[in-house]
Amino acid sequence: MDKFFSPKSIAVIGASRDPKSPGHVAFRNLINSEYRGEVYPVNPKAERILNRKCYTKVSDIKAPVELAVVMVPAKFVAEVIQDCGKKGIRHAVIISAGFGEVGNREGEKKIRQIAKKNKIRFVGVNCMGIYDAHSGMDFIFNPKHRMERPGKGNISFISQSGALGVVILDWMSMKGYNLSKFVSYGNATDIDETDLIEYLEKDRSTKVICAYFEGLKRGRKFFEVAKRIKTPIIAQKGGKTEEGNKAVSSHTGSLAGSTEIYSAAFKQAGVIQANDMEELFDFARIMSTQPKPKGKRVQVITNGGGMGVLLTDDIINNGLELAEISPKSRKGMKKRLPGYFVVKNPIDLTGNATSKEFGIALDAAIKDSNVDMVITVVLFQTPALDANVTEVIAERARACKKPFVVVSAGGRYTEVLKKKIEDAGIPSFSQPQRAARALSVLYNYWRGK
Amino acid sequence: MDKFFSPKSIAVIGASRDPKSPGHVAFRNLINSEYRGEVYPVNPKAERILNRKCYTKVSDIKAPVELAVVMVPAKFVAEVIQDCGKKGIRHAVIISAGFGEVGNREGEKKIRQIAKKNKIRFVGVNCMGIYDAHSGMDFIFNPKHRMERPGKGNISFISQSGALGVVILDWMSMKGYNLSKFVSYGNATDIDETDLIEYLEKDRSTKVICAYFEGLKRGRKFFEVAKRIKTPIIAQKGGKTEEGNKAVSSHTGSLAGSTEIYSAAFKQAGVIQANDMEELFDFARIMSTQPKPKGKRVQVITNGGGMGVLLTDDIINNGLELAEISPKSRKGMKKRLPGYFVVKNPIDLTGNATSKEFGIALDAAIKDSNVDMVITVVLFQTPALDANVTEVIAERARACKKPFVVVSAGGRYTEVLKKKIEDAGIPSFSQPQRAARALSVLYNYWRGK
Repeated sequence: MDKFFSPKSIAVIGASRDPKSPGHVAFRNLINSEYRGEVYPVNPKAERILNRKCYTKVSDIKAPVELAVVMVPAKFVAEVIQDCGKKGIRHAVIISAGFGEVGNREGEKKIRQIAKKNKIRFVGVNCMGIYDAHSGMDFIFNPKHRMERPGKGNISFISQSGALGVVILDWMSMKGYNLSKFVSYGNATDIDETDLIEYLEKDRSTKVICAYFEGLKRGRKFFEVAKRIKTPIIAQKGGKTEEGNKAVSSHTGSLAGSTEIYSAAFKQAGVIQANDMEELFDFARIMSTQPKPKGKRVQVITNGGGMGVLLTDDIINNGLELAEISPKSRKGMKKRLPGYFVVKNPIDLTGNATSKEFGIALDAAIKDSNVDMVITVVLFQTPALDANVTEVIAERARACKKPFVVVSAGGRYTEVLKKKIEDAGIPSFSQPQRAARALSVLYNYWRGK
Repeated sequence: MDKFFSPKSIAVIGASRDPKSPGHVAFRNLINSEYRGEVYPVNPKAERILNRKCYTKVSDIKAPVELAVVMVPAKFVAEVIQDCGKKGIRHAVIISAGFGEVGNREGEKKIRQIAKKNKIRFVGVNCMGIYDAHSGMDFIFNPKHRMERPGKGNISFISQSGALGVVILDWMSMKGYNLSKFVSYGNATDIDETDLIEYLEKDRSTKVICAYFEGLKRGRKFFEVAKRIKTPIIAQKGGKTEEGNKAVSSHTGSLAGSTEIYSAAFKQAGVIQANDMEELFDFARIMSTQPKPKGKRVQVITNGGGMGVLLTDDIINNGLELAEISPKSRKGMKKRLPGYFVVKNPIDLTGNATSKEFGIALDAAIKDSNVDMVITVVLFQTPALDANVTEVIAERARACKKPFVVVSAGGRYTEVLKKKIEDAGIPSFSQPQRAARALSVLYNYWRGK
């Protein structure tokens, strides 16, 4: 499977000279990516593409080719795969669409048979392909100025939907969230979600697996594997209603199946279920950065009272508890903080809080054995708060052996400072309920483990 | 009440020379705002502030003063209000904190009595004040580089929590959402939420009222008024749990009351309930821009299949229905669109869609009498799609007499193009379920009206 992510050489079959075509953009992105292997364009109608010699068919290439990226129209795919076999290629990514998802199940079956006969394993058909942030390999056919790529991280993401996949990669880049590997696997004609999670479990740069599924190719096997592996899996499921199922069948040709059955099976296998795209990464960030909590008692520190109120509701509604800080730490804090600060839970430092006062409250919460997890609300809009507060928080977070998250919301100034928080490895959330929900997911995942 | 939003002259009592203090920033923001009335700083310890003559007390000002902004420490407020009475001021905004919310109920009662005796109506205590996007009046005490201000629009927002209020204004500015009036009213010691919504109903620049409540000062009266007025009210309620209620009492000193009772009363009074800050403005934007729908049949047009699947689920889960486009329009579309496009509901234009093809599908959906509402998913990341698609969509939206919204998600390039959509008055959403939920709120609001 490594050959899918860091092959020594790649042939792009269906590379094109037309700058607007996917076959051109994918090829251009690949040669402009950090990927350092050999890249060969294949197209019988072109002599050179982007100043590289172009081949009529893949078997004309003299040098060895480890991975074939297939982007030709559906009707030519069979022939291309046959030729890949002739060339001795064992790995392919078939991006071409026009198979089971439009009723052409026969055509899809034929591809599977030819590939099998030629000992070729492939990702696809009907997909967006693979992006590996670590090897730099990138043949996603969207222009980079329209869709940015996330940096190197430890979250891998597999998506049955290509569109959803690219939306998420683009959004992750803007947010500064990092990635290990991305696979859009479409109809899962050969390599399926179970193969992928089995591989990603062994991948040293993957700490958490995110997934968007529409159906599961081998349901029983998938749940068996999901239950066995140690890497947390976070999944969003498309096709939860009868109507949604119909939409799935004309999208990736999958059978979506009953929601109730899926939901129960996910739960039993320890798969964390996300309700939307944002939750996928809320949960992934908390699972990949935060330690196992000792209990469910949460301390809130805030410089905005309303946020404290909302968080209190959200902590309770998500099955967590408000920590009760020990009388001793309360006394210590009271001595060092202005009298009008509310030293309960939430600790309300009010709009007058300085970074020094945040530090005092944070130190107390981190040390206190009655506190299992810490949520810090920092509203950067106030005049009293210097930008240095991000350092104060990051320093405490590094020292903290408990789950530690930040809630902060606003406009452009806030986004800049939040990125500093995120860069320090602290998950930050704009909506208080997302923070509470993420902590409850973390708590429930580790409970009994 | 107009005097609170566009007075001819304002005294800032507690204006300060210290650039980090709220009293300085509020005064600076006011003189730098678009507000064109007279502004007087009052502070016994300063002779000039920002090059303006400073007064020892408000009654020393010779010229008339219509509005007093009070930012002195709690213990001086009574005396200041007394002096405002002497000066003949009838309107005040008391930003000062340190009253009921910290147990000082006596102090708060005293302020109320003195104000009443002097015929002064006031907003506060313990609040962030008022921002009027139309008159330009802005004495919010957060620096503008840390908290941006939204432009002129038709959504008004009243917030019991100051912090939540400023977070939302800042976030609205970044998103390009516009505002009419913002009032942070804190402890509602005198002017309360009911006074405010009664005033905003008559305000010609307010089409929708958004509110964050922790408690209601006059519950029965509020629901009476809410039921009577024609302006849609969208409310988020803080303090929904017992623990949340406790947090409320040390925040704005309100009694939050039982969630069930509130929720039922809101529903009966026709108040739209939002679960989070984002929903407040999802619903506000749809209510302020979209017409009454004829029914609940939604047509989805998408260039990303996975988004179509998710939207289908969300439409059903929110009690809406998938429209069935007439055989005639389907035939017409099939003739003009490539064969591999899926012309059902969702209409899946695939990643190859051009802006022309979006236009064809939009025209059909807008004309079709089987379609009550239209959701267009446009993923800007694909190579085939030119940026002109925003014009194509905006043009159709202008001609469309049905509710029309857009779903689009991604990174920076997408955000730029989404802003163009939003500027054309079309609500746009990043998460498919938010679009479906907003349409269901619109449908349910108008049902039976």
